[in-house]
Parts: sequence; structure tokens; C-alpha cells
Amino acid sequence: MARDSRTTKTSLLRAATGEFAEHGIAGARVDRIAAAAGYNKNLIYVHFGSKDQLFDAVYEDAVKEILDAAPFDADDLPGYAGALFDFHIGHPHLMRLARWHSLERPGEVLPIAEKANAAKLRALSAAQGEGKVDAGLPPHLLLALLVGLAMTWSEGSPEPATADDDAAGIAARRHAVVVSAGRLTRPVPRS
Amino acid sequence: MARDSRTTKTSLLRAATGEFAEHGIAGARVDRIAAAAGYNKNLIYVHFGSKDQLFDAVYEDAVKEILDAAPFDADDLPGYAGALFDFHIGHPHLMRLARWHSLERPGEVLPIAEKANAAKLRALSAAQGEGKVDAGLPPHLLLALLVGLAMTWSEGSPEPATADDDAAGIAARRHAVVVSAGRLTRPVPRS
Repeated sequence: MARDSRTTKTSLLRAATGEFAEHGIAGARVDRIAAAAGYNKNLIYVHFGSKDQLFDAVYEDAVKEILDAAPFDADDLPGYAGALFDFHIGHPHLMRLARWHSLERPGEVLPIAEKANAAKLRALSAAQGEGKVDAGLPPHLLLALLVGLAMTWSEGSPEPATADDDAAGIAARRHAVVVSAGRLTRPVPRS
Repeated sequence: MARDSRTTKTSLLRAATGEFAEHGIAGARVDRIAAAAGYNKNLIYVHFGSKDQLFDAVYEDAVKEILDAAPFDADDLPGYAGALFDFHIGHPHLMRLARWHSLERPGEVLPIAEKANAAKLRALSAAQGEGKVDAGLPPHLLLALLVGLAMTWSEGSPEPATADDDAAGIAARRHAVVVSAGRLTRPVPRS
């Protein structure tokens, strides 16, 4: 692809990320995206085909960024939950994208997300087998609950993200997530 | 209000609940709501004023239903988390409403929700004071995390609600939520 064409696509993707994060898939307007990027809206159709396909491109980039942000570590699950929390707080627009995606395309899972999830489950299952992580719950349920804990205060959650969100409030939430992840995963003796 | 007028409002609210749950606030169409209820759309403006005010009415009813569904019991927090889970699974359209509300009106909290939350926090704080609930985390953070756990598989969550959702899968998720709520709240000895 020529350099100019790459620049155009990059600008359109950046503008589209903002628009979709703000308004969702149905609510996004192709002409606002074109105006924000400073291009004619025909270029969106030329490069991406349709608004839905533009969302596909935006969302795949977002999922890659989310997957890269918090590397999974089965030996330090509280640390993993804390890293997820940090990423969500630092990237509210990506969290909004993920919420719209869940609401507007329920059940759709990207292959890259599925693959990453399978790798996490293998590592978690191994850590349970070695007795490093409590084995009272199956790995897929435990992993989902850890993610749920880390998302308690993320965008689109019923807890108002705007209340009590100064630096001290955010640090207290992070601490609570890390402590809770420890309590969920630390091996407990079974009778 | 005359009986006919009450019937009209009830029918419009029911149709509006379905439409807003499916499409969100911006995506909802007043003419689809009128058509689904079998009334002229002018009646929506007569009774509710605007699409936004119609959403206000729908959402306040939904919040009341959610608050009534799972009575808070500081002496049985795993049971409370399980009841919340059951309600979410059984009322996916109300969960979708709550998610759209969070995304489209970030930071808005209804007074009835604020009041109910304050009562829960008082009860939780008292239970911590009596040593029935672990006091390692402040009550407002602990309560938010319990709700977050119970919502792990609810609508608009990144965990695909459609996978593994037969009766056995749902029972396993419920069990995982209840066990995890116990681990988060059971008093642990402090050194």
C-alpha cells in the first residue's frame, strides 16, 4: 500500500475509534468520522467498504491493544487483575468500544480473542495442577470472575465511574481488586 | 387518571422497554414503539413529552424492579450475590437497559438507587463491625466488587453470554459466583 493510502487509513481509523467509542455502532455517523479525519467520506467506503466493516477494523485493533496490555501471569493473578484494572482506567474509550460491541453484536468473539483466552486457560489449569492456584473452580469460570472483578469500575459498569475517582479513590479501588483476586485464587486447604 | 389513559401508558411503557433494551437510547425509534404498542406516536409525546423522558420512565421502572429483586442481606452475602446472578440471567432486557444507560448517560444515578445503596452500605458496615463480614475492605468497595462478580456473565459483559449457557453451565456459573462471594466476605484472622 502506498504511504499516502496508509496515512489516510490510519487517520480514518483514529477518527472512527473516537466516534464508535462515543456513540456505538448504530449511533456512529460516517460523515462525522470523515469530517474529524479531514477526508471525504467516500474514502471510508473505498478503504473499508461499509460502516460495519470500519467498525470491524477499529474493534480488531482495540482487541489487540487490550490483549497486549495486560500479559497473563498464572503465577501472579492479583498482579494480572491489577494490570487489567490499570488498563481499563487508562483507556476508557476502548472499554466503551468493547461494551458497545457486546450490546450490539452479542455472542461475537474475535478469533484472536478466542486464541488468547485458550492460552490463558491452559496456563491457569497448569497452575491449578501444580497447587499454585486454588483448584476449587474450573479455570474458565475463575478467569471470567477475575476479569469481572477488574472491570467493576470500568466504563459501562453500573458503578458510576465518575464518583470518588480522584487519585486516592482509584488507588483504593485498585487495591481492592488486587486483594480480592488474591482471595479468589490463593489455595485453601480442603478437608 | 382515567382507566383508558393508564392502559395506554402501560402499553407504551412495555413497548418502549423492549425497544430501548434492543437499541439503546439514541438507537430507539419512537415510531417503532408506537407501532409495537398499537398507538399513534403522538400519544407518546402527550404522555411522556419526549423520547428521552420516555426512557426516564422506562429506566426508573427497571431500577425499581432490579432493586426489589434481590433484597440485600448482610448476613448472607453469598446468597445475595446468587440472587443478583439469578435476576440478571432471568431479565437480560433489564440488564441491557442498565448497560445502555451507563454508556449513554455516564455518571447519572437515580435517587432511588442512591438511597437503596446507602441502606446496603449501612447494613454492610454494621456486619463488618460485628465481625460477621471481613473488614479488610471498606464497605462501598466490597459491595461494588460483589455486584461486579454477580454481573460477570450478564448482558453487555465481555464474557459471551451465549457460550456454554445450558442449564448445567448456568448452574456452574452461579455456584462460582456464590463461592467467590464467600471467599471475598468471610472474615479472615489478621495477624
